[in-house]
Amino acid sequence: MAMTITEKILADHAGKKQVEPGELISVKVDLVLGNDITAPVAIKEFEKIGVAEVFDRERVALVPDHFTPNKDIKSAEQSKILREFSKKHNLANYFEVGRAGIEHCLLPEEGLVGPGDLVIGADSHTCTYGALGAFSTGVGSTDLAAAMALGETWLKVPESIKFEYDGEMQPWVGGKDMILHTIGDIGVDGALYKAMEFTGPAVEKLSMDGRFTMCNMAVEAGGKNGIIAPDETTRVYVEGRCKRPYRFYRSDPDAKYEKIYRYDAAQIEPQVAFPHLPENSRPVSEAGNIEIDQVVIGSCTNGRMEDLREAARVLKGRKVHKNVRLIIFPGTPKIYLQALREGLIETFVEAGGVVSTPTCGPCLGGHSGILARGERCVATTNRNFVGRMGHPESEVYLSNPAVAAASAVLGRIGGPWEVD
Amino acid sequence: MAMTITEKILADHAGKKQVEPGELISVKVDLVLGNDITAPVAIKEFEKIGVAEVFDRERVALVPDHFTPNKDIKSAEQSKILREFSKKHNLANYFEVGRAGIEHCLLPEEGLVGPGDLVIGADSHTCTYGALGAFSTGVGSTDLAAAMALGETWLKVPESIKFEYDGEMQPWVGGKDMILHTIGDIGVDGALYKAMEFTGPAVEKLSMDGRFTMCNMAVEAGGKNGIIAPDETTRVYVEGRCKRPYRFYRSDPDAKYEKIYRYDAAQIEPQVAFPHLPENSRPVSEAGNIEIDQVVIGSCTNGRMEDLREAARVLKGRKVHKNVRLIIFPGTPKIYLQALREGLIETFVEAGGVVSTPTCGPCLGGHSGILARGERCVATTNRNFVGRMGHPESEVYLSNPAVAAASAVLGRIGGPWEVD
Repeated sequence: MAMTITEKILADHAGKKQVEPGELISVKVDLVLGNDITAPVAIKEFEKIGVAEVFDRERVALVPDHFTPNKDIKSAEQSKILREFSKKHNLANYFEVGRAGIEHCLLPEEGLVGPGDLVIGADSHTCTYGALGAFSTGVGSTDLAAAMALGETWLKVPESIKFEYDGEMQPWVGGKDMILHTIGDIGVDGALYKAMEFTGPAVEKLSMDGRFTMCNMAVEAGGKNGIIAPDETTRVYVEGRCKRPYRFYRSDPDAKYEKIYRYDAAQIEPQVAFPHLPENSRPVSEAGNIEIDQVVIGSCTNGRMEDLREAARVLKGRKVHKNVRLIIFPGTPKIYLQALREGLIETFVEAGGVVSTPTCGPCLGGHSGILARGERCVATTNRNFVGRMGHPESEVYLSNPAVAAASAVLGRIGGPWEVD
Repeated sequence: MAMTITEKILADHAGKKQVEPGELISVKVDLVLGNDITAPVAIKEFEKIGVAEVFDRERVALVPDHFTPNKDIKSAEQSKILREFSKKHNLANYFEVGRAGIEHCLLPEEGLVGPGDLVIGADSHTCTYGALGAFSTGVGSTDLAAAMALGETWLKVPESIKFEYDGEMQPWVGGKDMILHTIGDIGVDGALYKAMEFTGPAVEKLSMDGRFTMCNMAVEAGGKNGIIAPDETTRVYVEGRCKRPYRFYRSDPDAKYEKIYRYDAAQIEPQVAFPHLPENSRPVSEAGNIEIDQVVIGSCTNGRMEDLREAARVLKGRKVHKNVRLIIFPGTPKIYLQALREGLIETFVEAGGVVSTPTCGPCLGGHSGILARGERCVATTNRNFVGRMGHPESEVYLSNPAVAAASAVLGRIGGPWEVD
């Protein structure tokens, strides 16, 4: 029977010829992930299970990235739990501060996730790896604990929704704008527990970085996973990088979808999602005059090379507005180094921005850029819920890196075409 | 009557021909300083005084550096108070995140302090500027409030103690080692409310950066101020930089000192101050085998170019020990940029360290590198009191940047001569 890419990956990991939406299955996991917020809970649960070892020391990745370098004693104690557990179990993929990055930027970069993989992580944005043609999804800490012990998890096969993007993206439009526009269209519950399959010529033209951004935000529409069929772009990315064998899956032409959405990419303008939901997206040109206090560029959504290059292209030779703090978070040490060697870090600091260590930082209201009452921030992050970046009366506006950079210069929400 | 450099500066600012130790005087201030911890309190007090304006909008410097980029809502609200006050009073020297640095690195760099100045700041390490031949000292927030209104403050003229450093410093020895050795000798109350005047050939050979480090830690021996007579090195530093006229003072040859200490710089080895007091200093060679978890290089004590160069010299081509987090805090955006252009930032990140934005960060247990229970850190900072950098059962060992860098590589306290 015809299957979607998501169904095929799930079937293979369940040891079945085929699976159907709604079916409860037990699947083998290729990698499990925890961070400094979720892993301590999972480790506690793991120890209750009473097994001596993790199912595979190569397949448990622990990344202290949310509150690191540690913001306070409590977070330092959390990180210490990861460190000690990793030593005890001789984990191959524990990443210490300095070698760690934002988990969802780091794991693909390190070749720990490949096409056809099934990955679960105790972090909602684990859906990012769908960009590689993998099935990946966020789970709770207790599910992570069980998977750390057993190498398996259970799930309900999601129905798939196809999102097809025809036409050609306009200048300054990227994966972030396509996904914000899509969430604006279908709403933050528009794909509840669905596989969001992103297809069409505009998606095929996206770089890996742009694809990571799109799949990263699948969960912001409620999706179980986001996924893009692997192609030549994927192959170039994973070749020589992936540590395990990988396999390219594709949806059958006659696979069944619960729904199909079609968009003309040429009609999508750079987007900005107004407070307090990612679905409140509209074209930047319709933003009006919104003065801002802070700009954050980075995160697991937009902290990769293409993102930093776009931001630097706008900031080069310009100055951050006097009323604005610009804070930039490269996703990993390798991204940081590459950005440094390309002169991007210099551009950011010359412009009057600060470049942080690779950390989730303010995205989740963690640290390094928290907002006071009434402050407004344009951020390339993924969520703008009430209080997400600080005070409950602060506001976060989501955008792509070029719009964020332009807004930093303008002191208000605006597009790169308005700068100078 | 013969006077010390400190007495001469105080006398001139009191409008008197001479002053004597113990005398209570009212002095004009050339600059007053507050940060994101102390200025909010001062501003509140200032508003109670009921004057409409600060005494001079060019001479009030506000630097949000302790908890920035803001670690949480509370600190964001603190920073906002500075920002709004600066706007209201049109302060010339408010420094926003991205343009701000660690206050005691920033103000001299910006030419806001010059030789002969009298500066008070609501931060204990305000004594740093004595390196320029200025009188500078830390005050409480209410004293700052009064000075913001009046341009004056009162103080008791301190007795002076002369510290004379003969001989030549050995390799890997710098200002940090001289001051740690000195505090080890006289104790943390060895210069209580005294002017610590650093003199002698070894001090004269110190760069400005080394001098800032020495004067910075005067307060760690209880000193009211630290001071070094300005010379050619000072002149080169301030020329074309200082925004106001400056004046070189020198102690009279027959000035009276409460005490004179003499040290042979050639006999001073690189030092490490053990927990939990800066006076617990001993030669690194006598440190024994102390394994560490973290290394912090930076702060108002050792976050300048010379410090970063020393650290990079040790770290170049080497890797941070797997058990160690190395966190580097350049003092200001200019220092950051210069370090970047010299390839130092690249060296740090290649080695497996992280480079933070310019902030006080973990030095005071603020954020960005807080220690868990039982963790040990080698830091180029100035204080290793109980719980200073995190958990009350964590430990901080103070050293110079080369020793800190070497320790990061070794995974234990050690000197740069032990690396490779």
